[in-house]
Amino acid sequence: MKAEIISVGTEILLGDIVNTNSQFLAKELASIGVEVYYQQTVGDNEDRLIKCFEESLKRSDIVITTGGLGPTDDDMTKEVAAKYFNQKLELHNPSWDKINLYFNKINKVPTENNKKQAYFPKDAIILENNNGTAPGAILKKDNKTIIILPGPPREMVAMFNESVKPYLINLTEDVIISKTIKVYGIGESRLEIKLQDILKKQSNPTVALYAKEMAVDIRVTAKAENEDKALSLIKPVIENIKSILKNSIYGEDDETLEDSVAKILVDKNLKIAVAESCTGGMVSSQLINYPGISSIFMEGCVTYSNEAKMERLGVKRETLNKFGAVSEETAIEMAQGVSKTFNTNIGLSTTGIAGPEGGTKDKPVGLVYIGIYINGQTIVKKLNLNGNRQLIRQRATKDILNELRLKLINM
Amino acid sequence: MKAEIISVGTEILLGDIVNTNSQFLAKELASIGVEVYYQQTVGDNEDRLIKCFEESLKRSDIVITTGGLGPTDDDMTKEVAAKYFNQKLELHNPSWDKINLYFNKINKVPTENNKKQAYFPKDAIILENNNGTAPGAILKKDNKTIIILPGPPREMVAMFNESVKPYLINLTEDVIISKTIKVYGIGESRLEIKLQDILKKQSNPTVALYAKEMAVDIRVTAKAENEDKALSLIKPVIENIKSILKNSIYGEDDETLEDSVAKILVDKNLKIAVAESCTGGMVSSQLINYPGISSIFMEGCVTYSNEAKMERLGVKRETLNKFGAVSEETAIEMAQGVSKTFNTNIGLSTTGIAGPEGGTKDKPVGLVYIGIYINGQTIVKKLNLNGNRQLIRQRATKDILNELRLKLINM
Repeated sequence: MKAEIISVGTEILLGDIVNTNSQFLAKELASIGVEVYYQQTVGDNEDRLIKCFEESLKRSDIVITTGGLGPTDDDMTKEVAAKYFNQKLELHNPSWDKINLYFNKINKVPTENNKKQAYFPKDAIILENNNGTAPGAILKKDNKTIIILPGPPREMVAMFNESVKPYLINLTEDVIISKTIKVYGIGESRLEIKLQDILKKQSNPTVALYAKEMAVDIRVTAKAENEDKALSLIKPVIENIKSILKNSIYGEDDETLEDSVAKILVDKNLKIAVAESCTGGMVSSQLINYPGISSIFMEGCVTYSNEAKMERLGVKRETLNKFGAVSEETAIEMAQGVSKTFNTNIGLSTTGIAGPEGGTKDKPVGLVYIGIYINGQTIVKKLNLNGNRQLIRQRATKDILNELRLKLINM
Repeated sequence: MKAEIISVGTEILLGDIVNTNSQFLAKELASIGVEVYYQQTVGDNEDRLIKCFEESLKRSDIVITTGGLGPTDDDMTKEVAAKYFNQKLELHNPSWDKINLYFNKINKVPTENNKKQAYFPKDAIILENNNGTAPGAILKKDNKTIIILPGPPREMVAMFNESVKPYLINLTEDVIISKTIKVYGIGESRLEIKLQDILKKQSNPTVALYAKEMAVDIRVTAKAENEDKALSLIKPVIENIKSILKNSIYGEDDETLEDSVAKILVDKNLKIAVAESCTGGMVSSQLINYPGISSIFMEGCVTYSNEAKMERLGVKRETLNKFGAVSEETAIEMAQGVSKTFNTNIGLSTTGIAGPEGGTKDKPVGLVYIGIYINGQTIVKKLNLNGNRQLIRQRATKDILNELRLKLINM
């Protein structure tokens, strides 16, 4: 079964609002096995909307529209859909009663143009709106269906979940299930080479790569007659990918990099303290994203100045003088110092040149040292990062979290 | 001049990500007087993409695509666009050199499939990508134009601003100039009422509101035959808005809230230290976004535990026992303590319940106290914030920066 999504409304066409409705519908339709090959956005304009219906229903069985069900004259989605199917609108009394009730409840009376919202083709299935005044509807002619939903996301989402989803599930036979594997430290192109055998064999399940900032998501999607069968198709593919990528995988589905690190720290009860220079609080802030971190997160220090590095962390003045604040030696002393000061198992440190000023030939913008002290052992890593000040800081933050993760799982 | 936007990519089609690219482009195109009547989304599929090009270029002069420029085989936007125009792809050496440089910098070598990103039709205008590996391009045939841009928003936005916008403005006769005023602490609907006289008079310049997280941007846009004339249309409107909103305005154009605060601190040479509990490093991290902050940012402390609050900041045990860590009293002692410890003019503090656990009837999730000590005076403010853990922390961070800003400009 093929469907298309048509978003109707000038505010989306002109970019005044982000189209979250399309994303919601696309995701929901995929999850119940309805294929979507096109989405469109068009303004409140009869001619253009008619052309969209023509084009879409040539290619697909179902069109789902959002928007254009309001009480004013420029709201015309329902009227145009009925006209396209050559169906006449009649007053639907239960809907009109419901609109009256809605207004009574807020001590108001509906205006005459609200009545427009209660007109529907005689044979349409009316979709109740429990969050606003505009009912939706399912219009059918021959084998083609137009489902019209209101534009406000809260009304649309509720109406879809309550009425449209059950209606569509009834029409479909298969379910579609996805699992995501999350990878850090291997770029998209390199991943494609590593996984080329799996990627080429794509059919059911399919395997797709999605590049994120510094990371790649691998999504495995299967179609089957029920959830168990879909999961059993996915399982061996995921195991295969895991056997190839091993430790580069930091999580699954909604798990973040900081979640995966924080989880290990809490599970192993490893106390941690963080000393940050160029990242300026980002590493601590990421770790604290994880609820329950308080049992092992002892303290974070944003030691941006040399004085703070010496006084707070015990970095030696001679180290700073001889090697500079951005150096392997300083990163090591920061990591060791912060761990010692706060009596933790682990100390993290970052020091680097985030720019835009301050770079030299030897120490260019983007040079960052990250230090990790764990139970008596210290490692330090030199990074050369691209991007503006904020990106360099964000990338250094992700990199140290991933290095710590690798260290922890090998412990 | 009519344009259409085609978003290419399975991740948008399947609803994995929200299509912010279309919104950005729609808004930008409207601002320079390019008309957009349709937006489309299509997967990485040659036949369907060709059909989209056909349909769109029948109706419009220009098609702008986003996505599908990656190194892998399913990335095919450029190849399909060239095929549609019947143009052959050739290796563009400067682009290939640039890709090599990009990888060299991060101590990696490009894979053979990265080379695909450097192939273009001979006569295409190549658009440099300063934030990633995939260059964009402008392809032309007869009176029709296809502009292909990368999918990652950061790369796409920069490329549009640097190359595409000037190119399109050149094709139009008038110049369009925008100035943005940035407001914190007044919601969009309230702003609309405050500015209703100005908003109603919109024609040239137009005045539009754009709600951001916790803030609203007011964009004033004028169209005129040259920049000076456009600016002289904008100026009185901006002055009018400033006279109404006064201190609620924190900046103009690209200025961020943290920029505006940090700038005052540096100008007035006011030394600052930060003690964070629930925000866990976000306040420090935001301040350090500002280059040049090092002259006045003394130190940041992430004192997440009670022990850290006592040992590092001198918060009294009896205060924590009597009032709790999340209290006005603790926030005051944290702000005063961090300022005293690091000998600064200003001390900031945050303490709150970010959730999802830990809320009680008296102290629900979202309760945050922020403290500001400035030269002998301490203020504390109680916030009740909505949202998930991350949002509550981000909102508390923005709120304390704005409170500090208001304090500083009244000094």
